[in-house]
Amino acid sequence: MKRYERYANEIAGLIESGALRPGDRLPSVRQAGTSRRISPATVFGAYYLLEARGLIRARPRSGYYVSETAVAARSEPRTSAPKKRSSAVEISELVFQVLGSVKDRTVVPLGSAFPGADLFPLDRLARSLAAGMRKLEPARIVDDLPPGNERLRRQIALRYATHGVRVATDEIVVTSGALEALNLCLQAVTRPGDVVLVESPTFYGALQAIERLNLKAVEVATHPRTGIDLASLAAALRRHPVKACWLMPNFQNPLGSLMPEENRQAVAALLTEHDVPLIEDDVYAELYFGAQRPQPIKAFDRNGLFMHCSSFSKSLAPGYRVGWVAAGRFAQRLERLKLMTTLSAAIPSQQALAQYLDQSGYERHLRQLRRTLASRRDTVLQAIAKHFPAGTRMTRPEGGYFVWVELPEGIDALRLHELALERRISVAPGHLFSVDRRFTHFVRVNYGHPADARALAAIKSLGQIAASLR
Amino acid sequence: MKRYERYANEIAGLIESGALRPGDRLPSVRQAGTSRRISPATVFGAYYLLEARGLIRARPRSGYYVSETAVAARSEPRTSAPKKRSSAVEISELVFQVLGSVKDRTVVPLGSAFPGADLFPLDRLARSLAAGMRKLEPARIVDDLPPGNERLRRQIALRYATHGVRVATDEIVVTSGALEALNLCLQAVTRPGDVVLVESPTFYGALQAIERLNLKAVEVATHPRTGIDLASLAAALRRHPVKACWLMPNFQNPLGSLMPEENRQAVAALLTEHDVPLIEDDVYAELYFGAQRPQPIKAFDRNGLFMHCSSFSKSLAPGYRVGWVAAGRFAQRLERLKLMTTLSAAIPSQQALAQYLDQSGYERHLRQLRRTLASRRDTVLQAIAKHFPAGTRMTRPEGGYFVWVELPEGIDALRLHELALERRISVAPGHLFSVDRRFTHFVRVNYGHPADARALAAIKSLGQIAASLR
Repeated sequence: MKRYERYANEIAGLIESGALRPGDRLPSVRQAGTSRRISPATVFGAYYLLEARGLIRARPRSGYYVSETAVAARSEPRTSAPKKRSSAVEISELVFQVLGSVKDRTVVPLGSAFPGADLFPLDRLARSLAAGMRKLEPARIVDDLPPGNERLRRQIALRYATHGVRVATDEIVVTSGALEALNLCLQAVTRPGDVVLVESPTFYGALQAIERLNLKAVEVATHPRTGIDLASLAAALRRHPVKACWLMPNFQNPLGSLMPEENRQAVAALLTEHDVPLIEDDVYAELYFGAQRPQPIKAFDRNGLFMHCSSFSKSLAPGYRVGWVAAGRFAQRLERLKLMTTLSAAIPSQQALAQYLDQSGYERHLRQLRRTLASRRDTVLQAIAKHFPAGTRMTRPEGGYFVWVELPEGIDALRLHELALERRISVAPGHLFSVDRRFTHFVRVNYGHPADARALAAIKSLGQIAASLR
Repeated sequence: MKRYERYANEIAGLIESGALRPGDRLPSVRQAGTSRRISPATVFGAYYLLEARGLIRARPRSGYYVSETAVAARSEPRTSAPKKRSSAVEISELVFQVLGSVKDRTVVPLGSAFPGADLFPLDRLARSLAAGMRKLEPARIVDDLPPGNERLRRQIALRYATHGVRVATDEIVVTSGALEALNLCLQAVTRPGDVVLVESPTFYGALQAIERLNLKAVEVATHPRTGIDLASLAAALRRHPVKACWLMPNFQNPLGSLMPEENRQAVAALLTEHDVPLIEDDVYAELYFGAQRPQPIKAFDRNGLFMHCSSFSKSLAPGYRVGWVAAGRFAQRLERLKLMTTLSAAIPSQQALAQYLDQSGYERHLRQLRRTLASRRDTVLQAIAKHFPAGTRMTRPEGGYFVWVELPEGIDALRLHELALERRISVAPGHLFSVDRRFTHFVRVNYGHPADARALAAIKSLGQIAASLR
């Protein structure tokens, strides 16, 4: 852990314990530096991180204050405690039953898996699309076949390099979105009956992929702020003949957790030691609220064992269906699986993104996107803290657009979902995020849509319904 | 069989037997009508069909003549005779080794699976794309999620209706190309270890899908002109616990065969009797050279048991990755599999096609496309007949863009492929089209690219290499 992170955690501890309270002013950078004998850069780093976590807020020309919503941070859910044995998975049916309302615009999409479409430069992309296709010679139609458009793959490799991660253009395979990348990775390294490690709770899409391929899942204890528990991961790797490990280190779905860098290194070392391929689901990496982009576990890959999957769907171009995998030693296998199952990602989409990324504007768009999401998070978390029953706990994500909410025990989230849907509000019940449908009093709330009066009224209604279910 | 088909077959018999020879003039419509007591419409129908088969040609203001290339029709390959037992499949590795040259523009693509990109209105599509995306409201991003864009699905249903096939919009699921549709259909109705019936020879993509899903294949005897052998199909259905049957009734890949209508009805009846789902690969249906579009087997579906898969990739928009399945009773399962594996087809592609189809122009484009392909077929088949060793047999496809060529026995097609590739010519060796790599002296030749001097020189070279391998 870096010095500024230690200092930030110390302050967070004071807030959690109630020693620092909402509205309290923090020491100035100079004061803190002098009293603690730390550099101004360290203090700034810590304050920046705390601000990203939503615990403190800067007021112009006045300094940093504990934020009004920080009180919720006192009550985050605990580390999960899943069963230790492996299980066949049967969750898809429930997922589809519950999440069927996604296309209904009269429903407030707190249960949605997608961010608000208002966040993206759709007109700008349409222009890139038109420009990319206008210039296309017919003979070039085959050029975008797997591994994918060369210009686009170079752009993707360049972005890795910019963030200090060494990924060769050669190991990048363009896919029809990250979901395909993840599914193909899983297929590439497993046979029916094999065991796969996942977090607990975990993205239901991972469970559905495991179910579809007739695999078995082992869930591993996971902390809602720092991600998978290292000791539990090590134990699971010793106990089971694991063929793959599917993790989301950045802004995990549904937790919003962010794995500390030393944990990433430890996970990388463990998987390398056991020679277990990693399937790294990193679709929210660009949506960080902190000072810098978190590194993927892939950054610590020594043997080409880690497959890093991402896409442009959450950061730039929803619906274009362009994702990729940096597949290490599995690149050829991935390319062939892609060819066999869906042939190639759509050429217009590949051309549009190659064209867009060749021009400037992506970084500016991302900065705006992150600011907007961070602000929506604050608004939504504050509303939950205000309207949900006493005893509610929740995470405080430092990126992404999901918050994991633990309701007081005894409140059934599936019932909450049903009653909410009658009032045209969706919410994702915790049941969807584990093999054995635990997390029965948890919900995942999406704060990626406009935090407007309609959304806030919906949160208030959810709180009322929850209270009525105690 | 209809009257005009009977009359056409009679004339074809005369040509095959040598009684009618290239350059011979056929009786005029009036002569034939009078002497045979058949209506002018019947004669016209027969001549149209024979012209589509490439056996006769009209000369303006002169009448119909036996075509110069008709001689090759004397020597079509025989019905295949595959093994009767089921087998696990291991073919993917070979397919990828052999077909790796697809992106190399210095290679003459006689082995390609794709039609020439020059055949398609790419500029016109780019304009539809720009128009479709310019008008897109952000909130509509979720509308194109499975089962897919509503306007596009209605257009697809309308095209079925136009051809007299009853398909409800509700059973249509849009996919990322037909290959995805086919793979999802197979997954929808099988579990690892299940038995699937295919033609012999069959499209290697079907074999790869069977291999990927850990299924077993049973190959059924197939005639190179009329498709799967009915008695063999009936026997295989009795002998094996079949879970699905994957067929291409129209311009089969690699044969180019076209199943007669009464055979389609018989296949439908057999599958219905055994309650075996059909996976109908119908991607070449629009590429017919005859008087009318052949019906799919799906047209005879009584119980929602038949899944009809097609796409716009071969008829309009290569690379856009928009296909579909009319999935009958399996529609919901297909929709869910699509959601789980690749989420949705690319929105820009769906919008572009919905926009394009809403305007006129598709039919005109298709007529031009069919004429061009029929002309390329004639040129390429004539060149093969001229340059390949004596004893070569081949089919005379009435649509699509593949011809199946049987070389004299003893010529190894894999060796031919290797030597040809050294001369920058690709060809698809018969080895790829069966489980046990039979068809070792067959090749599939693609006539969908411009039949220019380069292509003709390549065919001449192929013939010379083949001769050298006797």
